Amino acid sequence: MAFKIIVFLVIFPHIYVVTASDPDPINDFCIPRTNFSSIFPSCKNSSLVTIEDFVYSGIRNPPLDYKKNGFSSIPVSSSVFPGLNTQGMSFVRADFEVDGVNVPHYHPRATEVVFVLEGKVYSGFVDSKNKVYAKVLEKGDVMVFPKGLIHFQMNIGDSHATIIGNFNSQNPGLVKIPTAIFGSEIQQDLLMKAFGLNSKEISKLKKHFGSD
Amino acid sequence: MAFKIIVFLVIFPHIYVVTASDPDPINDFCIPRTNFSSIFPSCKNSSLVTIEDFVYSGIRNPPLDYKKNGFSSIPVSSSVFPGLNTQGMSFVRADFEVDGVNVPHYHPRATEVVFVLEGKVYSGFVDSKNKVYAKVLEKGDVMVFPKGLIHFQMNIGDSHATIIGNFNSQNPGLVKIPTAIFGSEIQQDLLMKAFGLNSKEISKLKKHFGSD
Amino acid sequence: MAFKIIVFLVIFPHIYVVTASDPDPINDFCIPRTNFSSIFPSCKNSSLVTIEDFVYSGIRNPPLDYKKNGFSSIPVSSSVFPGLNTQGMSFVRADFEVDGVNVPHYHPRATEVVFVLEGKVYSGFVDSKNKVYAKVLEKGDVMVFPKGLIHFQMNIGDSHATIIGNFNSQNPGLVKIPTAIFGSEIQQDLLMKAFGLNSKEISKLKKHFGSD
Amino acid sequence: MAFKIIVFLVIFPHIYVVTASDPDPINDFCIPRTNFSSIFPSCKNSSLVTIEDFVYSGIRNPPLDYKKNGFSSIPVSSSVFPGLNTQGMSFVRADFEVDGVNVPHYHPRATEVVFVLEGKVYSGFVDSKNKVYAKVLEKGDVMVFPKGLIHFQMNIGDSHATIIGNFNSQNPGLVKIPTAIFGSEIQQDLLMKAFGLNSKEISKLKKHFGSD
Amino acid sequence: MAFKIIVFLVIFPHIYVVTASDPDPINDFCIPRTNFSSIFPSCKNSSLVTIEDFVYSGIRNPPLDYKKNGFSSIPVSSSVFPGLNTQGMSFVRADFEVDGVNVPHYHPRATEVVFVLEGKVYSGFVDSKNKVYAKVLEKGDVMVFPKGLIHFQMNIGDSHATIIGNFNSQNPGLVKIPTAIFGSEIQQDLLMKAFGLNSKEISKLKKHFGSD
Amino acid sequence: MAFKIIVFLVIFPHIYVVTASDPDPINDFCIPRTNFSSIFPSCKNSSLVTIEDFVYSGIRNPPLDYKKNGFSSIPVSSSVFPGLNTQGMSFVRADFEVDGVNVPHYHPRATEVVFVLEGKVYSGFVDSKNKVYAKVLEKGDVMVFPKGLIHFQMNIGDSHATIIGNFNSQNPGLVKIPTAIFGSEIQQDLLMKAFGLNSKEISKLKKHFGSD
Repeated sequence: MAFKIIVFLVIFPHIYVVTASDPDPINDFCIPRTNFSSIFPSCKNSSLVTIEDFVYSGIRNPPLDYKKNGFSSIPVSSSVFPGLNTQGMSFVRADFEVDGVNVPHYHPRATEVVFVLEGKVYSGFVDSKNKVYAKVLEKGDVMVFPKGLIHFQMNIGDSHATIIGNFNSQNPGLVKIPTAIFGSEIQQDLLMKAFGLNSKEISKLKKHFGSD
Repeated sequence: MAFKIIVFLVIFPHIYVVTASDPDPINDFCIPRTNFSSIFPSCKNSSLVTIEDFVYSGIRNPPLDYKKNGFSSIPVSSSVFPGLNTQGMSFVRADFEVDGVNVPHYHPRATEVVFVLEGKVYSGFVDSKNKVYAKVLEKGDVMVFPKGLIHFQMNIGDSHATIIGNFNSQNPGLVKIPTAIFGSEIQQDLLMKAFGLNSKEISKLKKHFGSD
Repeated sequence: MAFKIIVFLVIFPHIYVVTASDPDPINDFCIPRTNFSSIFPSCKNSSLVTIEDFVYSGIRNPPLDYKKNGFSSIPVSSSVFPGLNTQGMSFVRADFEVDGVNVPHYHPRATEVVFVLEGKVYSGFVDSKNKVYAKVLEKGDVMVFPKGLIHFQMNIGDSHATIIGNFNSQNPGLVKIPTAIFGSEIQQDLLMKAFGLNSKEISKLKKHFGSD
Repeated sequence: MAFKIIVFLVIFPHIYVVTASDPDPINDFCIPRTNFSSIFPSCKNSSLVTIEDFVYSGIRNPPLDYKKNGFSSIPVSSSVFPGLNTQGMSFVRADFEVDGVNVPHYHPRATEVVFVLEGKVYSGFVDSKNKVYAKVLEKGDVMVFPKGLIHFQMNIGDSHATIIGNFNSQNPGLVKIPTAIFGSEIQQDLLMKAFGLNSKEISKLKKHFGSD
Repeated sequence: MAFKIIVFLVIFPHIYVVTASDPDPINDFCIPRTNFSSIFPSCKNSSLVTIEDFVYSGIRNPPLDYKKNGFSSIPVSSSVFPGLNTQGMSFVRADFEVDGVNVPHYHPRATEVVFVLEGKVYSGFVDSKNKVYAKVLEKGDVMVFPKGLIHFQMNIGDSHATIIGNFNSQNPGLVKIPTAIFGSEIQQDLLMKAFGLNSKEISKLKKHFGSD
Repeated sequence: MAFKIIVFLVIFPHIYVVTASDPDPINDFCIPRTNFSSIFPSCKNSSLVTIEDFVYSGIRNPPLDYKKNGFSSIPVSSSVFPGLNTQGMSFVRADFEVDGVNVPHYHPRATEVVFVLEGKVYSGFVDSKNKVYAKVLEKGDVMVFPKGLIHFQMNIGDSHATIIGNFNSQNPGLVKIPTAIFGSEIQQDLLMKAFGLNSKEISKLKKHFGSD
């Protein structure tokens, strides 16, 4: 076996890159193999695929603990729900305590359609002309956040709120503006100029987001 | 008429190019014009776009009446929710009376991710080797129906059930197998051979689905 | 070598899924490796690629035996014709005895353009409003079946008929309605309600399609 | 206003179909409107769509006359076969007299899968490393020309030959190398250097292809 | 004429939505019509297309004036350079005075490949795990900013700097973080919680970006 | 370990092909592994990714030597610049001596946007109706070559010229017409007929391009 592999390396020295994309599948489904496949990914043989690969029960209940801004989310992409692989979709459950805030963020690779399970949620997005489209959503309302635009939410009701967000990518990505900007290692000088703040103010922000 | 057109030219001086597909948008959003645009579609000038274009409140409540199989659905595509246009997503609310059935069907242009709002729903799909993947879903469970495959559901609990289905197309399409096959004008001879049924049996089916 | 692999497993524990899709290629072509690559697929080194990878001679002749409905087909996707891999196309040869029937079916991942090589073939499709578009095609006629819609064919001439179908996917998939519905393990109760048939009628159908 | 429109109709009589891309459709089909819509393209109301929109009978017979190289083709894109619009496919019938040549050409927007209806056809393509993959195809053989690569054919049998080519674009485009290079207005100096020919030789070639 | 239009409105009352996307073109090119077409966009007749539609000379020179952060950019999308329409590309010229800053921003619909024409530019991006990849680029260096991720630049040399950015969308969009967050009408309460700042600090920021 | 692999081969004998395409990424980025991965490609663990993966410094300087037509180019695709992998872009630096010629060629998988760094360059393309769009570009001018169309350039100034071309594919491909046609093994007979040249003339051309 080992011999075989070595021969292989000699015969096929060229690099053929894998691309990873989100369009039409070419099989009914592709459940990724685990263990060994973590290095060389491929689809499970269909005889090993079961209904459990296509069902996810991990968002039945609200999360047990919340961050300091009264918000908690369970993102469900193809990495935890194998049936989503190659199917171009994923989702998230988000829970808000009273006054809880989902900070301004965006998904670099997806549109989001959000459904309010319970509560009253101020919800909005900013377009690329800096115009805000926002409104208080009630139970049963649905809102669309256009692909890649910054959006935000706040529980403005007097009880718990829960929403389900759906994405048209198996891995939409998530960029939270406060931590991406002030919790990362962007040079202080650049941030001072970009935000019109002095070094003390930037330091406070960086400290708050743990990149002090 | 002519007056209308002239006014139009003055109000909407921006250029919006036409394309017709479901992939990456080339604008933040494109809210279709109504009235005049029903013939020549194009995007609304962004100054006329409001938050109401991005929020849909039509699935807050269950439907008032059900079909004879105890099922009722409200599909929400870009044609009724303009904010979905060019964003590659849409959704449906479906309600089941006890024993209600969502007949075998498929969406020719989308994957579906379904979330159980309430109830116990037997839910499954058939892959292209005729293998069925099915299970009883409970409140909070999520299931994925791979793109274009036949799926079905039945309320097997003892109370009302409600689900939300999400699609990765602004207009996924819907083909219900029983009516597409027996409620359409496919030749009787062909159906007899295809299903191994005699003319009386096919006639009964066609009558049941109104294409007698 | 074995040592290297083990180290690898420890260093890179993360899962990176392969996606499989049908859009623009990023190489001139990609002939899949055989044998070893059955687990870890990749492209053959181009020095090992030959003209035989791009030519398929397996549909020169009609099939030797037909199913009981007088129909036989040879689907040719990238799994048997390696040159199709990543090129977004595949095809099928279908032969009809007199009165032979291609049962209602659809391809979940492709449009089909069908060309009549010989014979007279009643040919049609059903759109998502259950409207049938059908006609008798003669030798040399071409028909398009829109993406994902149910279509069907019957030899209504008095001699053999042959058609070639072309697809815009390297693996279009095939869902035959009679066997997907009555030859699979969908619950009998659900089928009874969906088709308005009693248990005896459903059992007859299931028996006919071998899922009794 | 009315005057303006009439002028428009006279100046721009050509039809440019809607969609500027070739991916997933968002409707079952989109038959382009004629007449008025030639300026402002959109889909026909489905009540006006008929089976004739989905069937093409124009390639039943060989062409009546051939070019001097013994070759003749009938390309069928969405502009002449409306059912192809938004469906991502088109095709061509090509006929060869004995010794007839389909000159080196490529399709900038599609893969081609070619089927030999009759005859013996030397058929090949050149990859981007200038390696030729070529072979004599016989009746019933199928060959794939990878997307965008130069290919060519010659009837090397002693009787008429006919092929059908299928494309995964509704409008694949066609660039014939001899006329694109020597039948266009590319500067003579540039061609001399590019091909290592003197001005007399280039003039002869330009004359041959009518751009003298 | 007017009569014709009215009839049209009565006969075709259905809405056909416009989509706008960035994938494979279906024509060689599509130069949008101006004037009348601003309402009903379509491609110019090719006889009216000239070389000027494919050449852009508006970024030959540096801009005349700079914003207070010493930065100025000229984005060139299909709306100002018609030849880019349907071709899936666009670009930007950006100039930096000494210490000039291109504030953290992202393009919701494109990857960017940036080329340094002159100067020394600190250049970086933040991935979705808040890890910063940054470096000082010199004349002739090229950097890629992955699709949709936040990136930033600062002239850290002692002379003028100029870069050219290229995008794989005809209209990549631009979201500048400071103005999208603090120059838009996002609720003050939400911003206070999101950034851990008090109302005075948020007011200062909002004032700085003109949304006080 | 070896044992594990053998077991694997027995359990999973089916082939699952890798597709390689150029659309939306599903990760922030995917830096291909080297060495071992040359056979089984996959993405580097992000902890091993550095800023150097996203920066390319190999086109700072002009090339040292030129081909006999006074032209030299450095194409930079994902195979030499790993950060481009899955990002749908790549680029080329091209340098022209006085009178240097970039021979007629095309990129089968991309649009090109070209920027003139210095010099005066006659630059043009041929559409699929053999119409040439050409012009002398000056320093700072930008031209777009529509996807897949033949284009060409010549330094018509009296000093060195340099351009940067950008592509919307990570591997656009390159087909140079003179060598693809006369430097490859296309049959002499076919070329004689295609170009209206005699065998002596074709032989001269083939000799010039090294396929004699």
